[in-house]
Amino acid sequence: MINDLKEIHEECGVFGVFQHPNAANLCYYGLHALQHRGQEGAGILVANDHKLSIHKGEGLVTEVFNSEKIHQMNGIHAIGHVRYSTAGGGGIMNVQPLLFRTMVGDMGICHNGNIVNANVLKAELEEQGSIFSSSSDTEILGHLIKRQKGHMIDRICASLEKLDGAFAFLILLEDRLYAVRDRYGLRPLAIGQLPNGAYVFASETCALDIVGAKFLRDVEPGEIVRVKGNQLLSRLYTKQPIHDKICAMEYVYFSRPDSILDGINVHTTRKNAGKQLYLESPVDADIVIGVPDSSISAAIGYSEASHIPYEMGLIKNKYVGRTFIQPTQELRNQGVRMKLSAVSSIVNQKRVIMIDDSIVRGTTSKRIVTLLKEAGATEVHVRIASPAIKYPCFYGVDTSTLDELISHKMTTQELCAYIGADSLAFISEEGLQKSIHFEKEHTCDLCMACFNRKYVTPLYDNDFQDD
Amino acid sequence: MINDLKEIHEECGVFGVFQHPNAANLCYYGLHALQHRGQEGAGILVANDHKLSIHKGEGLVTEVFNSEKIHQMNGIHAIGHVRYSTAGGGGIMNVQPLLFRTMVGDMGICHNGNIVNANVLKAELEEQGSIFSSSSDTEILGHLIKRQKGHMIDRICASLEKLDGAFAFLILLEDRLYAVRDRYGLRPLAIGQLPNGAYVFASETCALDIVGAKFLRDVEPGEIVRVKGNQLLSRLYTKQPIHDKICAMEYVYFSRPDSILDGINVHTTRKNAGKQLYLESPVDADIVIGVPDSSISAAIGYSEASHIPYEMGLIKNKYVGRTFIQPTQELRNQGVRMKLSAVSSIVNQKRVIMIDDSIVRGTTSKRIVTLLKEAGATEVHVRIASPAIKYPCFYGVDTSTLDELISHKMTTQELCAYIGADSLAFISEEGLQKSIHFEKEHTCDLCMACFNRKYVTPLYDNDFQDD
Amino acid sequence: MINDLKEIHEECGVFGVFQHPNAANLCYYGLHALQHRGQEGAGILVANDHKLSIHKGEGLVTEVFNSEKIHQMNGIHAIGHVRYSTAGGGGIMNVQPLLFRTMVGDMGICHNGNIVNANVLKAELEEQGSIFSSSSDTEILGHLIKRQKGHMIDRICASLEKLDGAFAFLILLEDRLYAVRDRYGLRPLAIGQLPNGAYVFASETCALDIVGAKFLRDVEPGEIVRVKGNQLLSRLYTKQPIHDKICAMEYVYFSRPDSILDGINVHTTRKNAGKQLYLESPVDADIVIGVPDSSISAAIGYSEASHIPYEMGLIKNKYVGRTFIQPTQELRNQGVRMKLSAVSSIVNQKRVIMIDDSIVRGTTSKRIVTLLKEAGATEVHVRIASPAIKYPCFYGVDTSTLDELISHKMTTQELCAYIGADSLAFISEEGLQKSIHFEKEHTCDLCMACFNRKYVTPLYDNDFQDD
Amino acid sequence: MINDLKEIHEECGVFGVFQHPNAANLCYYGLHALQHRGQEGAGILVANDHKLSIHKGEGLVTEVFNSEKIHQMNGIHAIGHVRYSTAGGGGIMNVQPLLFRTMVGDMGICHNGNIVNANVLKAELEEQGSIFSSSSDTEILGHLIKRQKGHMIDRICASLEKLDGAFAFLILLEDRLYAVRDRYGLRPLAIGQLPNGAYVFASETCALDIVGAKFLRDVEPGEIVRVKGNQLLSRLYTKQPIHDKICAMEYVYFSRPDSILDGINVHTTRKNAGKQLYLESPVDADIVIGVPDSSISAAIGYSEASHIPYEMGLIKNKYVGRTFIQPTQELRNQGVRMKLSAVSSIVNQKRVIMIDDSIVRGTTSKRIVTLLKEAGATEVHVRIASPAIKYPCFYGVDTSTLDELISHKMTTQELCAYIGADSLAFISEEGLQKSIHFEKEHTCDLCMACFNRKYVTPLYDNDFQDD
Repeated sequence: MINDLKEIHEECGVFGVFQHPNAANLCYYGLHALQHRGQEGAGILVANDHKLSIHKGEGLVTEVFNSEKIHQMNGIHAIGHVRYSTAGGGGIMNVQPLLFRTMVGDMGICHNGNIVNANVLKAELEEQGSIFSSSSDTEILGHLIKRQKGHMIDRICASLEKLDGAFAFLILLEDRLYAVRDRYGLRPLAIGQLPNGAYVFASETCALDIVGAKFLRDVEPGEIVRVKGNQLLSRLYTKQPIHDKICAMEYVYFSRPDSILDGINVHTTRKNAGKQLYLESPVDADIVIGVPDSSISAAIGYSEASHIPYEMGLIKNKYVGRTFIQPTQELRNQGVRMKLSAVSSIVNQKRVIMIDDSIVRGTTSKRIVTLLKEAGATEVHVRIASPAIKYPCFYGVDTSTLDELISHKMTTQELCAYIGADSLAFISEEGLQKSIHFEKEHTCDLCMACFNRKYVTPLYDNDFQDD
Repeated sequence: MINDLKEIHEECGVFGVFQHPNAANLCYYGLHALQHRGQEGAGILVANDHKLSIHKGEGLVTEVFNSEKIHQMNGIHAIGHVRYSTAGGGGIMNVQPLLFRTMVGDMGICHNGNIVNANVLKAELEEQGSIFSSSSDTEILGHLIKRQKGHMIDRICASLEKLDGAFAFLILLEDRLYAVRDRYGLRPLAIGQLPNGAYVFASETCALDIVGAKFLRDVEPGEIVRVKGNQLLSRLYTKQPIHDKICAMEYVYFSRPDSILDGINVHTTRKNAGKQLYLESPVDADIVIGVPDSSISAAIGYSEASHIPYEMGLIKNKYVGRTFIQPTQELRNQGVRMKLSAVSSIVNQKRVIMIDDSIVRGTTSKRIVTLLKEAGATEVHVRIASPAIKYPCFYGVDTSTLDELISHKMTTQELCAYIGADSLAFISEEGLQKSIHFEKEHTCDLCMACFNRKYVTPLYDNDFQDD
Repeated sequence: MINDLKEIHEECGVFGVFQHPNAANLCYYGLHALQHRGQEGAGILVANDHKLSIHKGEGLVTEVFNSEKIHQMNGIHAIGHVRYSTAGGGGIMNVQPLLFRTMVGDMGICHNGNIVNANVLKAELEEQGSIFSSSSDTEILGHLIKRQKGHMIDRICASLEKLDGAFAFLILLEDRLYAVRDRYGLRPLAIGQLPNGAYVFASETCALDIVGAKFLRDVEPGEIVRVKGNQLLSRLYTKQPIHDKICAMEYVYFSRPDSILDGINVHTTRKNAGKQLYLESPVDADIVIGVPDSSISAAIGYSEASHIPYEMGLIKNKYVGRTFIQPTQELRNQGVRMKLSAVSSIVNQKRVIMIDDSIVRGTTSKRIVTLLKEAGATEVHVRIASPAIKYPCFYGVDTSTLDELISHKMTTQELCAYIGADSLAFISEEGLQKSIHFEKEHTCDLCMACFNRKYVTPLYDNDFQDD
Repeated sequence: MINDLKEIHEECGVFGVFQHPNAANLCYYGLHALQHRGQEGAGILVANDHKLSIHKGEGLVTEVFNSEKIHQMNGIHAIGHVRYSTAGGGGIMNVQPLLFRTMVGDMGICHNGNIVNANVLKAELEEQGSIFSSSSDTEILGHLIKRQKGHMIDRICASLEKLDGAFAFLILLEDRLYAVRDRYGLRPLAIGQLPNGAYVFASETCALDIVGAKFLRDVEPGEIVRVKGNQLLSRLYTKQPIHDKICAMEYVYFSRPDSILDGINVHTTRKNAGKQLYLESPVDADIVIGVPDSSISAAIGYSEASHIPYEMGLIKNKYVGRTFIQPTQELRNQGVRMKLSAVSSIVNQKRVIMIDDSIVRGTTSKRIVTLLKEAGATEVHVRIASPAIKYPCFYGVDTSTLDELISHKMTTQELCAYIGADSLAFISEEGLQKSIHFEKEHTCDLCMACFNRKYVTPLYDNDFQDD
């Protein structure tokens, strides 16, 4: 489904590069490739051996940075961040990277994920006299590190041990960079290398490709990697058990189709899911269509498996940035359709199978089914390439509250009626798993808590009430 | 193929709306939907019964206009334009619409196409004392109309009779709007109607859809349509013969896949061309891939016909606007790849059929084949969904000069070697025609002059030398 | 009085430089120094031996140009313009320089002044088939030149002979620049020379100073100067009588105090006028204050002559550009005062002599007197450093219509009551003349038509009705 | 002397408003009036009874804010800040207000001044586990307040007691605002009231005037004022002795001439200083000129006392903001003069008395004397309206290091030779004091540490080495 309609949001993407004369520039391109992971804010922090400096702002990477600004950011190391935030969420102070100043040196941190015991830790820290400059849970790590003793890597590891939840952190000091992934591997983080030998880190491999870096491997769950000079060192930071559980929605929706997570290409898993959907829920129809952009792969898979032709029955209008003038409600009522159009000449008088990646609140699906019927589709069969989302995510995905999750409140049959479809089916959990783990080489299991409530961590004080 | 790599460019798109309280706003959305037809400049001209006023600038629609600016543009009628121009082409003075001031009233004109007898007409007009404020051939029409006598519609018709070439014009006066298409119908122009009864005109129907307008019909070749009050009147402006010959490249590359030209959906013709390509030039391989975005439909067609799976082997990095920081040559050399990436996990160890819409100079095809081979493809078979482009276009398409057209200089076999492909085939002219005219309902023939040199007009002084 | 409060406006400033590697850059600085002559639009046109290219836009020089844009404007010759325009006046099409394209070469024109027989000429030209792309009277000259025969200089001279009114033109061709002043010398135009020998032209000498150019001389009334290669040639373009009559308001209000017009420093003439005002209209009081910025010099003159101390009783808040957020009427009513504040600690309990340069509609004077009384002034004696403006200007000054000129409708005594002053006096015409021509070396008389109705040209069809 | 040439800089200005529906809007205007106190960054923080939100950025107030942004800042209370910072000083993180988030509520702080024991406090706080998000000394106050116990006002007072140095703080909570001034009253802070009863706070009274607020009184040295609901409460926060010592340079240079500090109008003190300078150091000459803008008042004072006419011999080119294109060194060498021009027609063949407010490094004075002599001045007598600056300031003024202070290294006679003047004199300390305290009503003494080394606080670890 298209980004702007989407009722589900990734929180962030991170990118880092160590030891390259154009560090800020590469970071800009890397963040651009990760732009789909967050459009609300962007920042880059550069270091050379003497100081850290930062520029960040609200909006897209291309809105926050211009060539003059990038040019000014001298530095041979850089970390950067793109951010999604809920409305009103804190403004510039929450845009990352965060930069900490201490009398013994500066430290920058950026983060993809969500700390589930943030409130517990914040309360403890405030109790001890700490005060926070942001409402971001990322700031907690800086405070924790400050309060540890010993070598920097030990201080970082001791701090990470206190955190529970989903995280991929990049931590930059004047002369070294740390990359960390939580012990479940919920959020992805890849390591690459540039032709000049410089190490690169990115939430997704698509950002390695854009800068010409070769993919080396993923940061492992529970691992901390340090780059200093031209050395990459690795250790486990945790004594707690490690359970590989990468977020299934990374495959279903968040990641770019050309990215490789845990050795698996995302587009391929989506196409597999489309094929699997056909095997599980076949239906006779004239054409298969996908909701652009993220459901196209699954739609093609369904088409190949069913031999029902794939057609471009829905089209997205591309526009980006905060500068686009949104239509007023009055113009919407008059029929101005900015985001998605049904292509009447394709769907008219046709029985349509519409593939989407997920349903969250159901309002968007309802709207698209209506669009298709208005454009002349005689039947609309909806097939969803993920299981029904019944539970909120606490690991960095903004899926709304329990109350808003329509599959929490309705059966599939009720939901089918609600969205006005002629039939509706979700892929099974097993089916999704099979689509992703179609080869033997994977190392991680999948977190499917939003489908089955099997949260990988305790939930602490997060506002999830049993029903 | 993706826009920014593209060696072939449409010149413009036009949009008009008559009698709507939010005319400028609708024009903004319409131009946004036509943005793919020109990214160098944009303008909107509004009229109410008392005066015409204009705003225009260089860049994308979203760069030229903001909400404040649109808000200031009070008017109930509007015409707008998006423009592609060759480097250095004239700056703001050539951005359309053009606005003419006379003591008896103002007139605005915007134009998609190219006047082939422009230099002849310009010389005549200058001889008579005219002076031009732009280097655009569009300005000629304003001068011609000024020099005629009689009713405005007669003056316009007499002027149009003098023009030869490709054009779709919108002409706005204080209280009326004219829409015109050349007598070959080379460039498209559709008529739509809003729920409130207002008439809308657009180069492509996708711009009607976005504003919620219902498609009524195309402006016919040789027709002039006038809207005044709530009346739409029509007449033929020419006594010369009318030969319907819409540009084949509109189907192949320029138009958006959801647009309908001459009653035919563009995506469908492209998919047909893919199927036809398979029938004409089958090859055994593991996967079919398309060069995004315009070749995806053809690739899916090829895949459906051949039962070879369609995969996402190439991916485009989306970015837009003049604010994007282009990588330096040095960074390019280091491997920074902004526009197109090959997805190694998909193409590695695979025999690949790569579908593209056209080849102009050959350098892009060569680059993509190289990308695919570097990503591990064992074979790359290139199939092109248009015939070989051997002759320049003089009807509003910027296909470079004869010398730069690689198919003018090389046989298919030589070109295959040049681009490093394992095989290369173009669709036949008949095959393309069949793909487009797959149903009986079409009214227009196709201009295929760039493939077969059958120019529909005399060429006057245009710099086409026989070889 | 301060610019934004002002009810009187200059129309433009022009700047040109010939044969300098940084021509556009110098033009930018020159226009910046002339910014007070027009804040609504700015443009620069550059030439090298091969082509003319232009950039222009609405707003201040610093808003229209950035360093990237200036950098792109390669050219060794340049002309530029800053423009004031009445509300809604035509938008970008009227921003100058105007650029004309012909098959034998391009021509750029910029203009300060007003052509009084514009409508007559326009009608003639339209009759002959010309059509206009702007509503600016400047465009007429381009059309006229196009219609003449012979050498370019002869064509220009013949065209200028047809114009009546006030003008200073700069005309740029690929390899030469012409500078012209009307035969009354109503608008100023100075010639300077850079250390590298390059010739520079500017509406005011302050723009020569800023670029490090040495003032050579003024362009003379009725003279045309041509620079080509490194030669400066001069001739009279007119056979009609020449009457030197520079606009008195240039000294009173428009020009910058450091500029030298006709050999006379502007600040000095203003200070003289202040002294003269005291001689003509002395009054006993505690302090003298001036309305910033243009009346400060006169106030100091009055203070020196009267030995009443000069104090800073009014202060202007500096802000510029279209980006400033204007207070809403509601906030104004609540007392938000953006433009001018009275300094209570200075004027409280004081008898104040308030010097202003002119009164047009009287509303501003009334507001300032009220401000001063609210701030505690016990008496406010208003002294105006120009005679009463009773007649409209047709020579490039926007002084509103006859009906709006308060001195046309009221006696000084009535006006004094209207603005709430304790006394009011204007300088006499003779007094102003003496203040300006305090030395023998001047060559020009003064146009004082707005005071005494002695218009230097016929008025043609301009809307001046006798009362 | 003009801002951009200036070798001496104020650090900041603050503005606050409590209980007004347009709080952010008024704050914008207030900050605009204080723009002369800092041009590097600006921010506004608004509160309503539920939350605090902030917007800030680098650049001028008009660059950081636009109407859309202000419109979004709903809130009935607001504090704002304009900032000067040394090159490279920390970027966005140091722009104020600072916003602190705690589990029991948010707090915003902005600050004008400098904490002299910042490093001591920072070290203590870091020792206790605090970590800083900025390099600003302002952040210390937030940390201190967090670590106190009891009622908020007691926590603030206890924290303030730990601070030594110069400060005017505004502290905003959801439902109350605190205003504080250090116990020496080094930095100014005024209280005003709007017609609707709302309280307003500003570094200078000129910002009260602009928003239509009536001046009530200054915050007293050592006083803390709290506004909550519609109550203004006051108490002394310190048990330490209070020594009123407002910074003399506020009168000499920083404050706007229309501001009233400690009951005394700034322009008047400057004019007095000019008169006093004449009494102390008369010289025979033809004209008196002032270096714009801050030395004009003193020059007029000198002129009145000496009866030597005041003339406008130097002129400043007005331009603002980061968008202005600075001339390259090459263009400077060619004579491009952006900031200050000498008016040749005024100074030529004249003996000139040039009044300036201060000399820091001497390079600017040297440059201006050179300009005047090149413009034809036969003699240049420099008179400075402050005593020689021999010692660095640690109270919020950026006067460079000891080594750069030319009066620390040279006698007046040597300095006169260095700058190329014909004579040079500074006002005496007593003379300056008399100029400021010309009436009996003042309550504060003056800090003149930069002239006489009588620092009002201990200097802690600040890098001032005895010579």
